[in-house]
Amino acid sequence: MDRTKIAQLYADAEEFGGQVVTVAGWVRSIRDMKNFGFVTLNDGSCFRDLQIVMNRDDLANYDEIAHQNVSAALIATGTVKLTPDAPQPFELAATQIVVEGASAPDYPLQKKRATPEFLRTQQHLRPRTNLFRAVFRIRSVAAAAIHTFFQDRGFVYVNTPIITANDAEGAGEMFHVTTIDPANPPRTEAGAIDYREDFFGKKASLTVSGQLNAENFALAFGDVYTFGPTFRAENSNTARHAAEFWMIEPEIAFADLSDDMDLAEAMLKYVIRRVMDTCTDELAMLARFVDKGLLERLEHVASSPFVRITYTDAIAILEQAVEAGHHFDYPVSWGIDLQTEHERFLTEEHFRQPTFVTDYPAAIKAFYMRLNEGGKTVAAMDCLVPGIGEIIGGSQREERLDVLEARIAELKMDAQEYSHYLDLRRYGSCRHAGFGLGFERLVMYLTGVSNIRDVIPHPRTVGNVEF
Amino acid sequence: MDRTKIAQLYADAEEFGGQVVTVAGWVRSIRDMKNFGFVTLNDGSCFRDLQIVMNRDDLANYDEIAHQNVSAALIATGTVKLTPDAPQPFELAATQIVVEGASAPDYPLQKKRATPEFLRTQQHLRPRTNLFRAVFRIRSVAAAAIHTFFQDRGFVYVNTPIITANDAEGAGEMFHVTTIDPANPPRTEAGAIDYREDFFGKKASLTVSGQLNAENFALAFGDVYTFGPTFRAENSNTARHAAEFWMIEPEIAFADLSDDMDLAEAMLKYVIRRVMDTCTDELAMLARFVDKGLLERLEHVASSPFVRITYTDAIAILEQAVEAGHHFDYPVSWGIDLQTEHERFLTEEHFRQPTFVTDYPAAIKAFYMRLNEGGKTVAAMDCLVPGIGEIIGGSQREERLDVLEARIAELKMDAQEYSHYLDLRRYGSCRHAGFGLGFERLVMYLTGVSNIRDVIPHPRTVGNVEF
Repeated sequence: MDRTKIAQLYADAEEFGGQVVTVAGWVRSIRDMKNFGFVTLNDGSCFRDLQIVMNRDDLANYDEIAHQNVSAALIATGTVKLTPDAPQPFELAATQIVVEGASAPDYPLQKKRATPEFLRTQQHLRPRTNLFRAVFRIRSVAAAAIHTFFQDRGFVYVNTPIITANDAEGAGEMFHVTTIDPANPPRTEAGAIDYREDFFGKKASLTVSGQLNAENFALAFGDVYTFGPTFRAENSNTARHAAEFWMIEPEIAFADLSDDMDLAEAMLKYVIRRVMDTCTDELAMLARFVDKGLLERLEHVASSPFVRITYTDAIAILEQAVEAGHHFDYPVSWGIDLQTEHERFLTEEHFRQPTFVTDYPAAIKAFYMRLNEGGKTVAAMDCLVPGIGEIIGGSQREERLDVLEARIAELKMDAQEYSHYLDLRRYGSCRHAGFGLGFERLVMYLTGVSNIRDVIPHPRTVGNVEF
Repeated sequence: MDRTKIAQLYADAEEFGGQVVTVAGWVRSIRDMKNFGFVTLNDGSCFRDLQIVMNRDDLANYDEIAHQNVSAALIATGTVKLTPDAPQPFELAATQIVVEGASAPDYPLQKKRATPEFLRTQQHLRPRTNLFRAVFRIRSVAAAAIHTFFQDRGFVYVNTPIITANDAEGAGEMFHVTTIDPANPPRTEAGAIDYREDFFGKKASLTVSGQLNAENFALAFGDVYTFGPTFRAENSNTARHAAEFWMIEPEIAFADLSDDMDLAEAMLKYVIRRVMDTCTDELAMLARFVDKGLLERLEHVASSPFVRITYTDAIAILEQAVEAGHHFDYPVSWGIDLQTEHERFLTEEHFRQPTFVTDYPAAIKAFYMRLNEGGKTVAAMDCLVPGIGEIIGGSQREERLDVLEARIAELKMDAQEYSHYLDLRRYGSCRHAGFGLGFERLVMYLTGVSNIRDVIPHPRTVGNVEF
């Protein structure tokens, strides 16, 4: 089929004016004025629809077309007419329209606006709606921008494993991956489950982070990144938690926490700018119907220098706010883990800027983070952005073998299990750092969509594995 | 640290000539000639090493550096000297070298060549070897090329789910994903495992294909692709099977099998060309030490038109070969599934070209493939390439609701479970097609590496989930 995409028509409207083209797409609406009519067609190649004008005199099957239901698939041939005085820059004067696939009258997504909750029950059809065409196009453009950002800077993309026998940092509950039948599991003589009989010969889980694996590659390639799915079996049914989500984890050698923050800031700005440049129609719709302040917020983050402040100074600011009468649900004192309310106060009310908080208490952070002088804090950073709170968490890694061994012993972790990780400190260790960016949280930020279920094609949450 | 990457030096050697720069990387070898010496340093930014010249007179810590072990991390400052008469185009005359991290003398990868089998036990260190630096750089460049190929053509990247309650096409054994403790599982009154108590409220598995999900998006966006991990719990311990591997699955609307083959051919050629243009040093090493015919093979595939032949004609060719005295282990007759020996005969001996075999018997193919006229064959295609056999499998999908329903009934599948899939045929169905490319198989093809364990950062196979 020699077919022109609607995106091409919008990109080169002047060139196509007067030309005969064939388009193929799905009906958004049909208006039948008896002897002429309008079909609004979308082919998914861009956010905008194409208006097709049809005349009874020109179309033998005028009535067949006029009676099609929403979402019918049509192939239309006609002349592109430039319409400088109309709202749309051109339309197609049809000379032939063929029904590729009719749509049944009970099509669940009629023109009236459906709620996101209802649309979650129609995950196979919701990409055809304006909201989800915008969200999933932006998701795709943002993913591509992330690859381009890192590849242009010489980073090596590493596919770290999904199935793992480690529990990474002990971060959160993990899903078991098994071929054992729980109705009739193999047992040892002592009566325990015999995981030697399982597929991998031991207990295996779904990864919660690729960081430790990525470090293996950073100490060979210098700069690497992962971009893949990660998992949490947390029983939390909130708008911000999914059991399966994608994560980006760069890891950079010969780099400290300051380099790490430079990288995170540059990456966020790059992705935001790319989406603003590429998805103007999608963002305009989202700003109109989902989040009024979206464009200003994105522009602000893309063009402002990020604030950098230590955890200790951040606590002081929060304590001053409490003294000045500000109420937080969670009390503030040095040593606490910052709650979302604290993070949002800092970035939204105090600084009104994206803010890096650095050098957290060692006691509330992971074992692999580099101990600062004095031993009370570690070289960690969280990036807080207005409207969402924490979007990135990272750290400089502990590269000193003796310090890392002491920390592993202190936390009563099994040093044997981390022997490979310790090897990296034995054979040419170097300062290095990295961070993790939850991709869905970024897409929520880029679109203004407030429920994580609405930025994932087929979301997995507790009790939910449909489609 | 104001640091120059070695890749930058090679890219702009003339510009850097006479300049003072700082580099940071890992020692590949050290030669100490008493009053002067040479350090070969690699920083992972490119395949090539940097030769550093050091003089006892210029370096206060000359002896410290001269006694470093392989893989020590160094930071070196000096002047770039162009060396037009030497094998390497320039060297660094060091004025300062700092040990960032020493390496222990028992470093497992000394200069002598280690076998791939041994290196599989050193997955955290093997990216530092020539072989794996080449393989994993090419893997990264190929992955980026795939994204660029599809994004440049307006395809939307879709992250289809990893955890699923479907078994897709019933293709292969699946891993269970569960939070149930098999030592003490919840049971129904009848005594069966009560999956209502599991995390998702039902039995869940790791995906074997994102295709059915991708179709939901192709019928909204027109052209989409997935690129993510997929899983097989097959108990086959071969050089070509992994339990976890990445797959690319494009899906295109208003397209038939011929369009599908055009896309597959264009994609393969694009990726090969991109790797040949970008990874010349890596490919040269692989052609020298791993696969002598690599460069000719890649050039041949990148520049030849692919053959297209029906399964029926392919069987006739194989039968003629048998008559002419060619021996196959598996007998040939219409209706068989082609074995690797048959595929390789066709592409390597008969056509000596990449070859699409199309229109396979319906009985050996999946339910969703479009039935050809006559009902004996389906619009499927496999792409065979010299040196490996099948690299891509695809099909035009059955878009006709009545035909698909009849096929599901015939195969005694549960129509209710496919109600969403059938909905796509109810509400604006259209001809569409897609294919699956196993990414590791592509990387094996691009590198000449013959064991899948050596193209995956941390491979997962039966009995093996280390690192």
